Amino acid sequence: MSDVLLTLDEVHKLVVDALRANGCNSENAAAVADTIRAAERDNCASHGIFRLPGYIASLQSGKVNGAASPVVRQLSPGVIQADGGGGFAPLALQQSRSALAEAARNNGIAALALINVHHFAALWAEVEPLAASGLVTMAFTTYKPAVVPFGAKDPLYGTNPMCFGWPRGDKPPMVFDQASAAMARGEVMIAARDGEMLPPGVGIDSDGLPTTNPSEILDGGALLAFGGHKGSAIALMIELLVAGLTGQDFSFEAAVTDNNDGGPPNGGELMLAIDPSRFGDSEGWLAHAETLFEKLNVMEGARLPGDRRYSSREENEANGISIPASLHETCKGFLT
Amino acid sequence: MSDVLLTLDEVHKLVVDALRANGCNSENAAAVADTIRAAERDNCASHGIFRLPGYIASLQSGKVNGAASPVVRQLSPGVIQADGGGGFAPLALQQSRSALAEAARNNGIAALALINVHHFAALWAEVEPLAASGLVTMAFTTYKPAVVPFGAKDPLYGTNPMCFGWPRGDKPPMVFDQASAAMARGEVMIAARDGEMLPPGVGIDSDGLPTTNPSEILDGGALLAFGGHKGSAIALMIELLVAGLTGQDFSFEAAVTDNNDGGPPNGGELMLAIDPSRFGDSEGWLAHAETLFEKLNVMEGARLPGDRRYSSREENEANGISIPASLHETCKGFLT
Repeated sequence: MSDVLLTLDEVHKLVVDALRANGCNSENAAAVADTIRAAERDNCASHGIFRLPGYIASLQSGKVNGAASPVVRQLSPGVIQADGGGGFAPLALQQSRSALAEAARNNGIAALALINVHHFAALWAEVEPLAASGLVTMAFTTYKPAVVPFGAKDPLYGTNPMCFGWPRGDKPPMVFDQASAAMARGEVMIAARDGEMLPPGVGIDSDGLPTTNPSEILDGGALLAFGGHKGSAIALMIELLVAGLTGQDFSFEAAVTDNNDGGPPNGGELMLAIDPSRFGDSEGWLAHAETLFEKLNVMEGARLPGDRRYSSREENEANGISIPASLHETCKGFLT
Repeated sequence: MSDVLLTLDEVHKLVVDALRANGCNSENAAAVADTIRAAERDNCASHGIFRLPGYIASLQSGKVNGAASPVVRQLSPGVIQADGGGGFAPLALQQSRSALAEAARNNGIAALALINVHHFAALWAEVEPLAASGLVTMAFTTYKPAVVPFGAKDPLYGTNPMCFGWPRGDKPPMVFDQASAAMARGEVMIAARDGEMLPPGVGIDSDGLPTTNPSEILDGGALLAFGGHKGSAIALMIELLVAGLTGQDFSFEAAVTDNNDGGPPNGGELMLAIDPSRFGDSEGWLAHAETLFEKLNVMEGARLPGDRRYSSREENEANGISIPASLHETCKGFLT
């Protein structure tokens, strides 16, 4: 199967057109397309146009409101709430970002509780604009049960990513974004296809026993959290920060109400923004952190987390990206 | 070697007397003794009276000011700074806790930047009082280089614990406290003594190669972060949140200035406190979170993180705890 070359603006237009043809208004379509464009620009195919069929499915099933109008409220001096009205998350995030930033600059720290949204994008794309504007930023979201609590045999926690961004002045911010699952399900599927064994700690079989055989994980088994009981505790923390704090569904609750159309369930997200200039080292903090990054950069074999994403950005903006021809055909099919 | 039985109040008095005989004033001595008493009460011997020789050493060397008077300032509506004045951390924490709680209740979220302190205690003992008062609480601190960044061969990050507390109304809060290192150095030493191999992912040998031999880790090797690159990213995040934000030493900087007397280096700590009643689900959040804990509690093999600490509390309060006679002799030696 051959690949199709698209400029990033062509990616954006294809996504906007497909979403609009399936019930999105132009604002919501553009916001989703922005996140897909950013993913393709940074070679993150798993959050790129590959996700369009899922977005479309959840519009076609009526689960997601493609014409949702987010409502942004200030619940307290340091807490912004954005009610996405049952739409996709990106528009609610775009419309509440400035309120979160303003609250963080006024108070030193602030939180954004995103509710009633369907989240299907990468957190790094949401954290990067705030970190680039000088705010230390964290984000957390849940999903449906996919990760087994340490010691148990059945999934309870979502894949539950967390994301952290640190501003670097004129340089792109340091942003890492990592799931609580030890490995993405797609990677396990690739290992099964290729007949390769996995490292220990990735999953369990249908009896709840540890296995390094990817087929046993996929066939009635389940994924573990990264790092044993410590990653499991982080997955629990994310359930509490996202759903516990904001009144949204825990992953296990989202699974009960979701229609399994292939798109994202309804849920929430929590973002925290911190203004480093309000913490007592307003002159020095930026240069100080660079001394740590410099230490890391000169260590053989080490790498600044998230750095790889930036490496292809310029080239992809100039030359475009390629997607599988079959995916391109599928996406074009959404236009009519 | 036999053990010596002490009531928890005897532990507290022994610690106070030893610290006062070595330069602590009564306020600082009592604050440190509170954290040691809490550790012994919860069967956390590694942060209990076992640490007293380190505290004493850093008083005797003059590194720590045993008569420090913390200064608490509000840097912005959501940011409290507590300057420990070169003393141990516990007094600065005790004196700034109410300011952090008040800022969190006023704003919904607030931060405490603890600076110029010597931190040698467990974070859970600091988080629990705030979580018990109804605030979601997080804490982070650094140390000296002990953990190798993912892919590198030499330590750069501290053991870098993070702690998270969730209020549970009348029940004790859910509090977990975990180091960024895959395993405590003491546990590696015990495995070496017993001739046991370690699981993969704990450490590297002196050539920077992965090893499961504890002796190779101790003999010029180093500890890895838990969970591979994801735990390593969390260790980096903690360096930035603690030292980057507050202007305190990164772990690699603390190692340069520390006198290696066996006590803790000078450094900082970051605490975050969140008032869940300000996030839009003020009526329901407490009961909602209990539904998740209930799901976890009925899963065979699973356990609520931190639960084990509470199990022995009542018995130890009633019957006291035992410490090695040699340690007791050492501690009594500090009294004269």
